[in-house]
Amino acid sequence: MSKKVPLPLKQKTILEKGDTLYQPGISVDCTIFSFHDNVLKVLLLKVKQVDKWALPGGFIFKKETIETAAYRVLQERTGVANIFLQQFNAFGEPNRSDSSIHLTRYLEYGIKVPKDNWLLQRFITIGFYALIDFTEVNLEDEDSNEGAEWIDINKLSNLIMDHENIILKALEVLRTQLAYLPIGRNLLQKKFTMPELQKLYETILDQKLDRRNFQRKMIGFGILNKLNETRKGGAHKAPFLYTFNDKKYQKALKEGLYGSW
Amino acid sequence: MSKKVPLPLKQKTILEKGDTLYQPGISVDCTIFSFHDNVLKVLLLKVKQVDKWALPGGFIFKKETIETAAYRVLQERTGVANIFLQQFNAFGEPNRSDSSIHLTRYLEYGIKVPKDNWLLQRFITIGFYALIDFTEVNLEDEDSNEGAEWIDINKLSNLIMDHENIILKALEVLRTQLAYLPIGRNLLQKKFTMPELQKLYETILDQKLDRRNFQRKMIGFGILNKLNETRKGGAHKAPFLYTFNDKKYQKALKEGLYGSW
Repeated sequence: MSKKVPLPLKQKTILEKGDTLYQPGISVDCTIFSFHDNVLKVLLLKVKQVDKWALPGGFIFKKETIETAAYRVLQERTGVANIFLQQFNAFGEPNRSDSSIHLTRYLEYGIKVPKDNWLLQRFITIGFYALIDFTEVNLEDEDSNEGAEWIDINKLSNLIMDHENIILKALEVLRTQLAYLPIGRNLLQKKFTMPELQKLYETILDQKLDRRNFQRKMIGFGILNKLNETRKGGAHKAPFLYTFNDKKYQKALKEGLYGSW
Repeated sequence: MSKKVPLPLKQKTILEKGDTLYQPGISVDCTIFSFHDNVLKVLLLKVKQVDKWALPGGFIFKKETIETAAYRVLQERTGVANIFLQQFNAFGEPNRSDSSIHLTRYLEYGIKVPKDNWLLQRFITIGFYALIDFTEVNLEDEDSNEGAEWIDINKLSNLIMDHENIILKALEVLRTQLAYLPIGRNLLQKKFTMPELQKLYETILDQKLDRRNFQRKMIGFGILNKLNETRKGGAHKAPFLYTFNDKKYQKALKEGLYGSW
């Protein structure tokens, strides 16, 4: 006889009272990017019961804003708080919802989800994304995250529903922003070299860039401070370190890298 | 005795069967901009029963994508079809819905909407926007639009719910796009002068721009063809006419005005 796993209170509440607690048919999903070891990664949760990966997501309380729900859901499921989340797209293909995930998850607890349960309806999800500093997130504490891991965006596989598509759309938005907004302050260490900055751009764009052209453009934007320090230890000539000029970085975030009209 | 207005079939269906036909608690709203007589305008519908203006909006059928719903709703309510709509933000303040609008509208037909009717729940709306050629829209046909009119965005007043806020957010997105994408092909006549193009930018940005600086920048983008023709009839020296270079305009729409990395 197999041992029955007890149903956690949170899962019980969602199943039995979700329709009275949450907005029906709508969810939020968060795509959290970071850059580490020259790889762009995204924060995913392992859904053990179906052995697939999922974006941290959840529902919107009846009296909660969409934004508040996104922050809450992200913190509840991964322990990540105090980051700037940005709404970028609503995903609503009529067949995007996959009831088999809910059925399988609850079956672990010996529960058969009724066909008319609110969880099994069509859900439209509102996508948020963020760029965060890898070192500011502690995923070690297993109690505060549901098996969250950083996954290389070039090695995405076995995601639930349309979550891979959501990540690719977030990446597309990120690439567009590279064309006119500064980037990197949350993704790089405080001090970085020009090759490190270039690598970040190359990784997001998924293409090689010309070194001299990149350097000339970046310096032209006027958002960098060149330090009188070098990064030692490499095989090449020690490259100079830079920081972002906070004031000019902020200005460029508002007006664009090429200045206002 | 007042004459009772018969309830149109569409309104009857929405009231009585809406909860089985549409996704619950979610709607779409379209902000359609055009530029005419040097004024940026937005397409609004007069809600006669409450004497207020509203964005063309509606609901999403159970098996319909969000995008399809936006196109359908816009066409049904204004007669406008075949324009490029872009999703830009979901609006979900918990108190944004205003049940008094539905109550008042149905009261005209002598119907009291029950408190638990699906129309009176909280709605989250997904905002779309478009820039269109004023001359391509025919609002004269009263049968195909519900009192749609072009309203100067500087003279917005008396809008329902958060619709003014939705328009301002769409305008903000439009302004951001001015920083790195070409604009104007749908908003100007095929042939236009540099002062006309500048006026479009000034209107969207709501600020005066330096004439020489603007001209130098615009020509630098390489998206214009200067014609060997002038616009006659003004008080000043007849200005040259321009058209957009379609191929370069398309390229800039993809890569940004400042070129790719």
